[in-house]
Amino acid sequence: MEYVIFGESHGPAIGVTLTGVPAGLELDLDALQAQLDRRAPGKDATATARRESDAVHILSGVFEGKTTGAPLAMVIRNADQHSGDYDALRYTPRPSHGDYPGFIASQGCQDHRGGGHFSGRLTAPLVAAGAVARQVLAGRGVTVASHIAIIAGIWDSPFETREELEALAGQPFPVLDPEAGEKMRGAILEAKGQGDSVGGAVECAVFGLPAGLGAPDFGKNVEGVFAQHLFAIPAVKAVEFGAGSAFAYHRGSQANDPLAVRDGAVVTETNLAGGINGGITNGMPVVFTATFRPTPSIALPQRSVDLRTGEEVEIAIKGRHDPCVVPRAVPVVEAAAALAACQVLGI
Amino acid sequence: MEYVIFGESHGPAIGVTLTGVPAGLELDLDALQAQLDRRAPGKDATATARRESDAVHILSGVFEGKTTGAPLAMVIRNADQHSGDYDALRYTPRPSHGDYPGFIASQGCQDHRGGGHFSGRLTAPLVAAGAVARQVLAGRGVTVASHIAIIAGIWDSPFETREELEALAGQPFPVLDPEAGEKMRGAILEAKGQGDSVGGAVECAVFGLPAGLGAPDFGKNVEGVFAQHLFAIPAVKAVEFGAGSAFAYHRGSQANDPLAVRDGAVVTETNLAGGINGGITNGMPVVFTATFRPTPSIALPQRSVDLRTGEEVEIAIKGRHDPCVVPRAVPVVEAAAALAACQVLGI
Amino acid sequence: MEYVIFGESHGPAIGVTLTGVPAGLELDLDALQAQLDRRAPGKDATATARRESDAVHILSGVFEGKTTGAPLAMVIRNADQHSGDYDALRYTPRPSHGDYPGFIASQGCQDHRGGGHFSGRLTAPLVAAGAVARQVLAGRGVTVASHIAIIAGIWDSPFETREELEALAGQPFPVLDPEAGEKMRGAILEAKGQGDSVGGAVECAVFGLPAGLGAPDFGKNVEGVFAQHLFAIPAVKAVEFGAGSAFAYHRGSQANDPLAVRDGAVVTETNLAGGINGGITNGMPVVFTATFRPTPSIALPQRSVDLRTGEEVEIAIKGRHDPCVVPRAVPVVEAAAALAACQVLGI
Amino acid sequence: MEYVIFGESHGPAIGVTLTGVPAGLELDLDALQAQLDRRAPGKDATATARRESDAVHILSGVFEGKTTGAPLAMVIRNADQHSGDYDALRYTPRPSHGDYPGFIASQGCQDHRGGGHFSGRLTAPLVAAGAVARQVLAGRGVTVASHIAIIAGIWDSPFETREELEALAGQPFPVLDPEAGEKMRGAILEAKGQGDSVGGAVECAVFGLPAGLGAPDFGKNVEGVFAQHLFAIPAVKAVEFGAGSAFAYHRGSQANDPLAVRDGAVVTETNLAGGINGGITNGMPVVFTATFRPTPSIALPQRSVDLRTGEEVEIAIKGRHDPCVVPRAVPVVEAAAALAACQVLGI
Repeated sequence: MEYVIFGESHGPAIGVTLTGVPAGLELDLDALQAQLDRRAPGKDATATARRESDAVHILSGVFEGKTTGAPLAMVIRNADQHSGDYDALRYTPRPSHGDYPGFIASQGCQDHRGGGHFSGRLTAPLVAAGAVARQVLAGRGVTVASHIAIIAGIWDSPFETREELEALAGQPFPVLDPEAGEKMRGAILEAKGQGDSVGGAVECAVFGLPAGLGAPDFGKNVEGVFAQHLFAIPAVKAVEFGAGSAFAYHRGSQANDPLAVRDGAVVTETNLAGGINGGITNGMPVVFTATFRPTPSIALPQRSVDLRTGEEVEIAIKGRHDPCVVPRAVPVVEAAAALAACQVLGI
Repeated sequence: MEYVIFGESHGPAIGVTLTGVPAGLELDLDALQAQLDRRAPGKDATATARRESDAVHILSGVFEGKTTGAPLAMVIRNADQHSGDYDALRYTPRPSHGDYPGFIASQGCQDHRGGGHFSGRLTAPLVAAGAVARQVLAGRGVTVASHIAIIAGIWDSPFETREELEALAGQPFPVLDPEAGEKMRGAILEAKGQGDSVGGAVECAVFGLPAGLGAPDFGKNVEGVFAQHLFAIPAVKAVEFGAGSAFAYHRGSQANDPLAVRDGAVVTETNLAGGINGGITNGMPVVFTATFRPTPSIALPQRSVDLRTGEEVEIAIKGRHDPCVVPRAVPVVEAAAALAACQVLGI
Repeated sequence: MEYVIFGESHGPAIGVTLTGVPAGLELDLDALQAQLDRRAPGKDATATARRESDAVHILSGVFEGKTTGAPLAMVIRNADQHSGDYDALRYTPRPSHGDYPGFIASQGCQDHRGGGHFSGRLTAPLVAAGAVARQVLAGRGVTVASHIAIIAGIWDSPFETREELEALAGQPFPVLDPEAGEKMRGAILEAKGQGDSVGGAVECAVFGLPAGLGAPDFGKNVEGVFAQHLFAIPAVKAVEFGAGSAFAYHRGSQANDPLAVRDGAVVTETNLAGGINGGITNGMPVVFTATFRPTPSIALPQRSVDLRTGEEVEIAIKGRHDPCVVPRAVPVVEAAAALAACQVLGI
Repeated sequence: MEYVIFGESHGPAIGVTLTGVPAGLELDLDALQAQLDRRAPGKDATATARRESDAVHILSGVFEGKTTGAPLAMVIRNADQHSGDYDALRYTPRPSHGDYPGFIASQGCQDHRGGGHFSGRLTAPLVAAGAVARQVLAGRGVTVASHIAIIAGIWDSPFETREELEALAGQPFPVLDPEAGEKMRGAILEAKGQGDSVGGAVECAVFGLPAGLGAPDFGKNVEGVFAQHLFAIPAVKAVEFGAGSAFAYHRGSQANDPLAVRDGAVVTETNLAGGINGGITNGMPVVFTATFRPTPSIALPQRSVDLRTGEEVEIAIKGRHDPCVVPRAVPVVEAAAALAACQVLGI
């Protein structure tokens, strides 16, 4: 399956075309919409105040409730727009946002309203595409689950079993350690109160992928496939598999996952490799962590440049922004993972 | 440019085809071979004892010293092979190596000798392809440089200027802080003495890319392009841009790079974003870190499974293996970065 | 630029996403719609009676009248639907139509109404995408023009100059020889009167492409690029460049195009090669012919199979169908050619 | 499977990398070489006098006689080179050959000796890749066979059964009608005697592809996939499916293939559509014709331009050239068809 996401935050609509969908899948539209609702803003005080119904309209590729195999197009109309909030910043790019490079790339023609095509809102069609992917995967016994691993330097407990991770499904703030979760929320609200934002990370696992998928080669290795999907999520700045960057502290004797036999199947006793050796799945869960930078749009004054005059200026960003994108990013990461898993499976 | 790497560690030859090479490039073969020599084993006690000349033979795509634009094929013959070292492990995969998933993916038909197609030796053609890419980039004022950021938990100093990083070019163990370098080497030799291995990371920068390259979209965002190239290097398990996973500890007010004007050009005062905002280059150096797991092939006894009988067994790996791949991986990371930079430039 | 066409004849909408559009193009929406209107049905007695406004709605990628470089999504709503016409044929595929293989490919789930995703109506978004491509090309001095070369075995005069071909732009039945055109129309109406249909061909030229585009290699040779775009048009069964299949009758001494110098430029005195040698443009117009099969949907009784019972049956097709798709296919061929030309130009 | 062909006619070697080969295929090297031998020159008086052993050396991807799934690289060394024959033409391009556009595309840097990368000799690695594809297909009951359909305007009988076409396998001059074959050979020799060349066409069929492969969409429709493979063969200027360009003379009532049931399977009574409806296989043989232009390299004097001076000149081509490429092109067409069939099958 390949997807193309289109739309701008304050344009008429956003959407996605998804090609290569297997025919004959009975598409559960409620489940699809439920994924969108997980990502939707306005669920609690830690998120943006923007309200969008995010109702998905299917334009093609589904007939009598089943996928036909033809391209599946989904559209979400934009509604609650305060475009005026953004005019002041049209020529004074927000630091660490796509504004400045987007201005250059588009030759000054980008839709600047609400981040335009760079808006986090564009993750809604990604979640929709991922929701289709999840339903395709479910028919093969593959599931995706995740938790908030870290926010503002506060860590959740590591996950140990598929069951405990899947038990978090659908929670708006999925953590394994409720106490850590409370601290994270506190840190978000504190930052918000100060006109600031915080970063964090999502740890995600794909369960049920058989051993032998992928190849060591460019374009085919499983880490590369997942990474390409994950870095397409705005604000992701690091992707790690298994122990990830901690491998730089390890010895081989600690880092290697011993092979063993359980119930007649070859497994590894630990899964520090995140289910991938030599670019190929080894049958263990594919586990990775995606780190999100703090929301660059903060209320505190910042230094920018007026692109018309070339003068340095100070800006203050209005508009509605999440002080931390991580909670709402959880279903987005899972969507990207589901799309990556389909690619790895050759779907 | 697109590349296909072929070959097995103990087959007749390894090599690469590189398509889309711009015509008319005066190819400096000495500079190309010099990149190969950086990667070649046997330079000091921290590396494998295998000796290979790694002489590159160009089969096509170059005429009278210049690239023709036709596919450029390069071959490196294999010579110093101790294939017998590997027969004992044919059906008892080394933990955390590609052996087991490779066995499954190839239906038991992989060339097991010396890691076959999974061998680190396959990075030699990658370096060759990258050496061509570097020469293409040089004509556009783009350079790639890097240092060992961390080995066995020991950190090098962070890099601050293009000059200090480029000054390391060609060093077999490039670090900015010689004292840290000594400690790293000590840690490698200590692990080696104990039949063990260590992991680490390379920090790399691409200088000279203009602002405005890339797009936020899947397949086009700069982080995703680089990550796909980097994860195609064996043993890379994490890729981070700019502050990377440390963003999970930051606030927006710390993490944002203020915009400023220097010599008439828009720049950022810091470069925590690693030269990329919204998936697009912002004109600052593209900076990333690639983490390498400890070499899985260690002399210490390890638990494995006999794939013929399904019984758990203990194995001891013979053969010649780097106790730490990081020093030799430096030119490999740079090669992958050069190829990624070409892709981002539309070359 | 890459495009994805979605939609079904009787679904809520059809459309296209177009990625890689250069930023900063002032999009002429009237010119875009004019291309759609050329393709629209209902202009004369030789075409289907179906009426559709085919108004294009742009959902993204255009801001303040200019392309932004972000994906450009266009949607055309479906309106005039007689879905009931098709229910009788749901399980009795029309001979030589996509019905039967579509049934198999979709596991019986395709939208059968009006041909679903196989409908000629899906060429409307192709024309829309091509209209954008034409505007991109116009900025580079590249134009596309064509005429009806043959219908029902009746040939138009061969084209000789760019001017005479461009003079046909916008005509609903573009032929160089009006008398031949009258005969063609007569043949179409005669077939229609007998419940039958006829085939034909469009000859098309792309003017202004510089020499040196393309390569002999798979995926890059100019003939292959054009052919892939052209065969994506429903009912195209042959694609020929220059003299095309007539080369099988020629000698080299007749078929070779002598090189010459005109106004300081290297040209060929004839253009039997259709502007392409060795898979690369030679600076002459790229000229090709696309042959369209007769519309398979005819009123005459035909033999089919009931896919539920496996019994042979006789069917009679109702609904509204063009007795010859060629006149309306002219702008479709030009659209595909414009998209191919952009690909060849690396746009 | 994807392939990259590299090499130049008079360079050290030509070859191909083939990726995505299924693992576990017992590769019949004799059968592979036999395909190469079909294409090799020097078998009779109608062909070039150049002698090449065309022995294929496998560098990777095969271990203990079986494919491993890793990239399969094959190399053929060049031996019998008369490079001096070509120096006279370095700056005076042969009409209708790749010389002139290749000069422009390569910025004057192409290897001009023997046509360089444009040489028909580059079809040898294509045949090698196709030979692997044929063996992959054989395991799925899919075969490829063909005959010379036309040379110099002389037609062979049309093929009617799989058996009669397969009976031609391996013949150096495969025709169904021996008398037509004699006339074709006479026409070739006559042209050769006059320093001239002739064109022709190959009709090819792929048997055994199941119904339901492909899609109507760009990049997926079966005609487009085959055409892209076929136009990558030098000198192919037209590709037609089924009745092809003759559809322009037909009525729907003649051109439609009635559906019927035979032995419980849905078939078509005729196969004018060439096994493809709506871009999808319908279970009948995929039948197509590829037309080859007359060899542009003829001994007769021709007009060219000296690219150094811009003056018009007359040239006479020496060197060894086939007066008709069609007989030797038969295995090349089959190779391209086999690679296309694998792509259509998702291999």
